[in-house]
Amino acid sequence: MKLFRKPLMIEAQGSFAAGGTVIREKGTYEEAHALSPEGQEKHVDHGYVFYQIPADARKNALLFLHGAGQSGACWETTPDGREGFQTLFLRKGYKVYIMDQPRRGRAGSGGVEGKVTSVADEALWFDIFRFGHYPHYFENVQIPREEEAENQFWRKVTPNTGAFDPKLTAVALADAAGRAGNTILVTHSQGGSPGWLAAMKSANIKAIIALEPGVGFVFPEGEVPPPMESSSPFGPLKGVAVSRSDFEKLTQIPILMIFGDHIPENPSPHGGEDNWRVRLKEARLMAETINRHGGDAKVLHLPDIGIYGNTHFLFEDKNNEEIADLMDRWIVKKGLGG
Amino acid sequence: MKLFRKPLMIEAQGSFAAGGTVIREKGTYEEAHALSPEGQEKHVDHGYVFYQIPADARKNALLFLHGAGQSGACWETTPDGREGFQTLFLRKGYKVYIMDQPRRGRAGSGGVEGKVTSVADEALWFDIFRFGHYPHYFENVQIPREEEAENQFWRKVTPNTGAFDPKLTAVALADAAGRAGNTILVTHSQGGSPGWLAAMKSANIKAIIALEPGVGFVFPEGEVPPPMESSSPFGPLKGVAVSRSDFEKLTQIPILMIFGDHIPENPSPHGGEDNWRVRLKEARLMAETINRHGGDAKVLHLPDIGIYGNTHFLFEDKNNEEIADLMDRWIVKKGLGG
Repeated sequence: MKLFRKPLMIEAQGSFAAGGTVIREKGTYEEAHALSPEGQEKHVDHGYVFYQIPADARKNALLFLHGAGQSGACWETTPDGREGFQTLFLRKGYKVYIMDQPRRGRAGSGGVEGKVTSVADEALWFDIFRFGHYPHYFENVQIPREEEAENQFWRKVTPNTGAFDPKLTAVALADAAGRAGNTILVTHSQGGSPGWLAAMKSANIKAIIALEPGVGFVFPEGEVPPPMESSSPFGPLKGVAVSRSDFEKLTQIPILMIFGDHIPENPSPHGGEDNWRVRLKEARLMAETINRHGGDAKVLHLPDIGIYGNTHFLFEDKNNEEIADLMDRWIVKKGLGG
Repeated sequence: MKLFRKPLMIEAQGSFAAGGTVIREKGTYEEAHALSPEGQEKHVDHGYVFYQIPADARKNALLFLHGAGQSGACWETTPDGREGFQTLFLRKGYKVYIMDQPRRGRAGSGGVEGKVTSVADEALWFDIFRFGHYPHYFENVQIPREEEAENQFWRKVTPNTGAFDPKLTAVALADAAGRAGNTILVTHSQGGSPGWLAAMKSANIKAIIALEPGVGFVFPEGEVPPPMESSSPFGPLKGVAVSRSDFEKLTQIPILMIFGDHIPENPSPHGGEDNWRVRLKEARLMAETINRHGGDAKVLHLPDIGIYGNTHFLFEDKNNEEIADLMDRWIVKKGLGG
């Protein structure tokens, strides 16, 4: 457990549920048949949000959404016990809101039945996360490699308790932003998909930083690029069509997409790396489309600015402070650092 | 969102996984068959712990374990947005550790398959939690009743992602206490069961406060009371036998069990209340057994000291500060306030 350089001053902290629906069963509840659902309700499909407001906070909040197989815990601490983005951004004076999306983590009550399997799959993800070629790490890789760090990293994985639904998550994000005030949304991986949809629903979302968005790249109807073939174990990558009016909402806010190292420019037989080749390419197409429609979107490939070795989990990598700093500088440059 | 009376000074915060096992599949991982489990691993059955260390902290930590259908979120904020036990005890200078048990919340990766259902059951729990007789609240009830408070309360419910296993949870608690140092364990409801087992495993657990323990009351082999009949929808209550040497570890630490209001002394046709009549009775039997073996266990029934209206969620009730204060006074009295 690392001690801070100096204590954090926290003005308020706590948690709340955002979004969600209610199941209402017909009939009348009877105490004598309490185990029967008749006449009973169940609150489902909300997100869970933990927030901390530092003393003398900046006006704008950061709202973090995890990726596939993760919960808000991914932002709290790095696998080797250093401060995660939660604490690093509190130190920078931001209000920090961290979500578990509907049907994940502490927001596990879903409106559908779910099956949780227990299939060993960490080598697959080791390759997809660009740690290396399992079981060998890339030489310059920034993810901590100590045995206990590996143990901690893999134990942050937590399953869906029901099918992933980007629309439900977008509703939860929009509600959370409604409570947080002016918000910069930070998404990771699969979280990119509901992130774009949330910005179409909430005028409180003033910017998006998407860390290695992985699915659900959006384009206006008629402008979706053809599916991109890849040796990724997940197959070809398809874009998602949205209405032109929805897409244009993404032209009203600054957007930054950040990608790490070991993403090839040309097709690779290594599915883990090739998975990201097509995603980086799709991100660039999406940014070009936003900008062609008058927006302000940028794709930052970290090796292009001399930052090497970053994995898919760049916010848990050894240089996570450097990544946080460059995000902060971008926010300030976009006039949202107040 | 309520602002604090004064800011919290936090020296360190973050999260870690505690306990757990690793599934290792036979065979060799091949990138070309990445979706097949051969040769892959999966880290499972750990607990998740979020911790905060206040500046100038007391020596002893508090470790909180939720009950059935809940996660660590239950300790963070009351349904009406007031400070939960997490923040109230940080204010009192304690290091605070909050667990999601294995196969629950952010610790959802279990070593077994799980099925998550979506059955409406809130009227059942309204009665079991002694809020009243659904849909009518008891007149003096301390749980916040505003519409948004009800919404927030029910959305804290989150399912098991695999079968509840008190032994796995006890391992996770013991590991967490190993990291936290001298620890006062605070359990709620179902959490009582793994709590007793954890104290048998970890010499770091220096006291237990069990808030309305609900299952898994332990007795030495040969001293388990006969099952208690009840109109509870969950049927009769059975004690759990442990070895005499394990039981005697519970005689080495002070133990406090706290129960709220609306628990009848005599059998009641209302299953929700009668559920707690037998649990309070069993708690008293367990405390007597501990004390007969030379220990220091006490059952505190709040109405006996003039505190009325408390529900099963006494740490989320309107008088939760009063409950926190009396816990703090007990800890200090037992010489663990240092």
